[in-house]
Amino acid sequence: SPILIDSVLLCSGLALVHFWLLVSLNPCAGAPDPGQREAMMRQEASQRTGGGLVLTPAELRLDALLHRLKRQEAGAAPFPPAMHFFRARPLIQRSPIFKLLQKMPKGGALHVHSSAMVSVDWLVKNVTYRPHCYVCFTWGGSVRFLFSAQRPFPRWDCFNWQLLASLRAAAADPAELDASLARNLSLFTENPEAAYPTQDAVWDRFDDAFLAISGLVTYAPVFRDYLYQGLEQFYADNVMYLEIRAGLSRTYELDGSTHDRTWSLKTCKDLSERFRAEHPDFLGMRIVLSAHRVLGVSAIKAAVMEAMELQEKFPDVVAGFDLVGREDEGRPLWFYREALALPARLGVTLPYFFHAGETDQEGTDVDINLLDALLFNTSRIGHGYALTRHPLAKDLSRKQGVAVEVCPISNQVLKLVTDMRNHPASVLLAEGHPMVISSDDPTLFGTAGLSYDFYEAFVGLGGLSADLGTLKELAMNSIRFSSLSPRLKDRGLEMWQKKWDEFVAKSGE
Amino acid sequence: SPILIDSVLLCSGLALVHFWLLVSLNPCAGAPDPGQREAMMRQEASQRTGGGLVLTPAELRLDALLHRLKRQEAGAAPFPPAMHFFRARPLIQRSPIFKLLQKMPKGGALHVHSSAMVSVDWLVKNVTYRPHCYVCFTWGGSVRFLFSAQRPFPRWDCFNWQLLASLRAAAADPAELDASLARNLSLFTENPEAAYPTQDAVWDRFDDAFLAISGLVTYAPVFRDYLYQGLEQFYADNVMYLEIRAGLSRTYELDGSTHDRTWSLKTCKDLSERFRAEHPDFLGMRIVLSAHRVLGVSAIKAAVMEAMELQEKFPDVVAGFDLVGREDEGRPLWFYREALALPARLGVTLPYFFHAGETDQEGTDVDINLLDALLFNTSRIGHGYALTRHPLAKDLSRKQGVAVEVCPISNQVLKLVTDMRNHPASVLLAEGHPMVISSDDPTLFGTAGLSYDFYEAFVGLGGLSADLGTLKELAMNSIRFSSLSPRLKDRGLEMWQKKWDEFVAKSGE
Ligand SMILES: [Zn+2]
Ligand SMILES: [Zn+2]
Repeated sequence: SPILIDSVLLCSGLALVHFWLLVSLNPCAGAPDPGQREAMMRQEASQRTGGGLVLTPAELRLDALLHRLKRQEAGAAPFPPAMHFFRARPLIQRSPIFKLLQKMPKGGALHVHSSAMVSVDWLVKNVTYRPHCYVCFTWGGSVRFLFSAQRPFPRWDCFNWQLLASLRAAAADPAELDASLARNLSLFTENPEAAYPTQDAVWDRFDDAFLAISGLVTYAPVFRDYLYQGLEQFYADNVMYLEIRAGLSRTYELDGSTHDRTWSLKTCKDLSERFRAEHPDFLGMRIVLSAHRVLGVSAIKAAVMEAMELQEKFPDVVAGFDLVGREDEGRPLWFYREALALPARLGVTLPYFFHAGETDQEGTDVDINLLDALLFNTSRIGHGYALTRHPLAKDLSRKQGVAVEVCPISNQVLKLVTDMRNHPASVLLAEGHPMVISSDDPTLFGTAGLSYDFYEAFVGLGGLSADLGTLKELAMNSIRFSSLSPRLKDRGLEMWQKKWDEFVAKSGE
Repeated sequence: SPILIDSVLLCSGLALVHFWLLVSLNPCAGAPDPGQREAMMRQEASQRTGGGLVLTPAELRLDALLHRLKRQEAGAAPFPPAMHFFRARPLIQRSPIFKLLQKMPKGGALHVHSSAMVSVDWLVKNVTYRPHCYVCFTWGGSVRFLFSAQRPFPRWDCFNWQLLASLRAAAADPAELDASLARNLSLFTENPEAAYPTQDAVWDRFDDAFLAISGLVTYAPVFRDYLYQGLEQFYADNVMYLEIRAGLSRTYELDGSTHDRTWSLKTCKDLSERFRAEHPDFLGMRIVLSAHRVLGVSAIKAAVMEAMELQEKFPDVVAGFDLVGREDEGRPLWFYREALALPARLGVTLPYFFHAGETDQEGTDVDINLLDALLFNTSRIGHGYALTRHPLAKDLSRKQGVAVEVCPISNQVLKLVTDMRNHPASVLLAEGHPMVISSDDPTLFGTAGLSYDFYEAFVGLGGLSADLGTLKELAMNSIRFSSLSPRLKDRGLEMWQKKWDEFVAKSGE
């Protein structure tokens, strides 16, 4: 109110009256130029992922809708990206943004592990109901599975194998039995803070769930169906292409006989081709062969040699090589330098897709993985959670077009971040860093496909700044930064564009 | 083991045997050049805050000790910077790193609010024990204080004023009474997650605690002692200079008469001079006049006009102007553009020290505060928590030497971040962004001085990468980026260097 100002002015003496007269003449002098301010805001916006795209009128309509929905979601409490995903999941499932993201053609999923690509429900309701499925409960309270023609021999961790069918028949509450199996095959739980108080605790359960799953999915007949189901679930989530990290350990038959990696790769190739024949708008599946980073140098040498060989045999299927397992516990990349240098020394191109920087520790040996991954010419970076703390590595990755595979839910469940708005990829999005969104281990995190991770990225990491352009660029990135040949990339982008236009036309109404 | 490799090689056929021979000749070909790798790591390290400093032999000895201590601290569980500060405080108090940081000359504290600069203990044990202290318990379960010659009149929030001395005399457990007063004057609590489930909840208590404190510290005789005690506590924590954000609302006497801002500023000036006379190695205290960002434009115009006037009257004491209060709830800076443009329009230099970007929301009106603060030529940025998500603003702030005042504990208690390793200032440290460390509101956060925040910054934000050089640059920054004149900065840096050398000589032994 002018009265308040006047009284202040009177109190402040005559000097200010002189000021006041001056001020009254031109109320806008002295403030920053609004035009320049607008230009700066636009400049910052254009730098963001997708900020350089020019949207069509139809896209702009859908963008306006999304922005409206996002404002509503950000205004309501609780805000799902600020919560643990296990608590947020029911809220996300009801979100209209999530429902749009499910329908959106998301391109490819470039960072998914072969042992955790389907929803846990399918494992329990389909796989564990098959005949000859034996189960045992370990000393640590976990569960192991084995398909076998007769009762399996006791193992160090499993003395008492029981036929699951008999157990189920005898169970007072078979639904509870299934629920308990599901709990063992996944990390999902109602109270994650209590169940997983520390990173160590959640990684222990993570490793254990993989062991439990492995007995199910390395049974050769299941392996085939399982992979096919994985493709189905991603396809149903409007994902058109997959790159799978896979160790491809031996698969087994009922009689105990086993198949090697060549058999597994042949199976992958056949399945991918069959799936494409049945779904002409699907681009296919490729495999990044991976070995565990607890192994010694010579074992990794052997794995790299084998990867080169398998790449030669299955050039359509094998995309490259990676090291997997918890970085903070495993060996740093530099430890394996002799092994990782083999392809270059032999004049062979074996693309690398290294997990690197999946850590919140800084200045450790492991923390140098990001730089080393780039020095070994990695094609992409798995997670790259620590990248913003390494300005030089960040710069290299940007200049060399080495995309970061961001898996927000994985990082939250594995306790790198609590509130998604603090995920470092929010900085990378603001800077327009090359990036794709992926889901890492859907079975373990209670997800399926990519939509949940896209939700967290779009609403949490991107905040109100992320728009339809962001989503469009992230989807296109997943084909651009894939391991596909330039010809297949072009074809993929064309196919994706058609789907995208349909999606925009339908959703913007 | 070579046996494993051989068997793999045999399995893989003759082609690989040929590879193997080749590989055996020169085991180092194909790997990145270790010299180049070293150089890149050094380049990244030199970019960090303090990375450009050349340490003396004595400093290098102390640095080695710090690094050793840090490795121990990072290896032990639980890791204090990953915990809520209220839970971590007892661990930090036992930390040998913390004890070193307490002794370290930290330079100045540039972001502290006048109403929350002393430890809560002193308020309870000293201030509330003074005669004529009345207390009342509000409907909301909070507490208000008033010094008065006779029982105060009932107010809307306080019907029943009681003399605290009588209450204490009648109390069955006076220690518990004091403890309950302390709980009302601070946010500190054993179970912060339960007490403050949301940002809204913690800000409500934050605002309430300020109201409770204000009745105590705006009593004129307490105001003087309180400020002096504030200086004492920072000085005891080896801080040699203070810049205080202060609204300087009216102070009152026992008879209900009041003093205006001029009186308060005169008191600040006298106190600061008295303190310097008694502590010749103290540089002084300056005030950033601040107004609340819930006010209207004309009220802020009046506040800016008054700030210009007071700056002219007390050039030694008044450093500039700021807007305070929760950004997400208050008006954005641009809303006040006419008011904030007044000094420039009048040809007056009123330095700004804007709180900006103390938010985890992105793309809101408030999120533009960072850019606007810079457009209004702010001298420093309070918090700047969102800065890494604004590459353009970050760049401007860096190029214009606008330091960010990082207050890690404040950001954690006010629920912007859970694990300090995810604090965005860890990125700014890695990039060597201009930065100082401060403590915002020690009374409310259960701290005193700067050492706790330095601990979180050094161990949490900096990880193993932060070293003695980081600490040295952060301390020097606090004088460099202060509002002191160039002459006083030089004197301050000289005084600081002397203290620093003594500290290094003593601690490195
Ligand atoms: Zn992974
Ligand atoms: Zn503040």
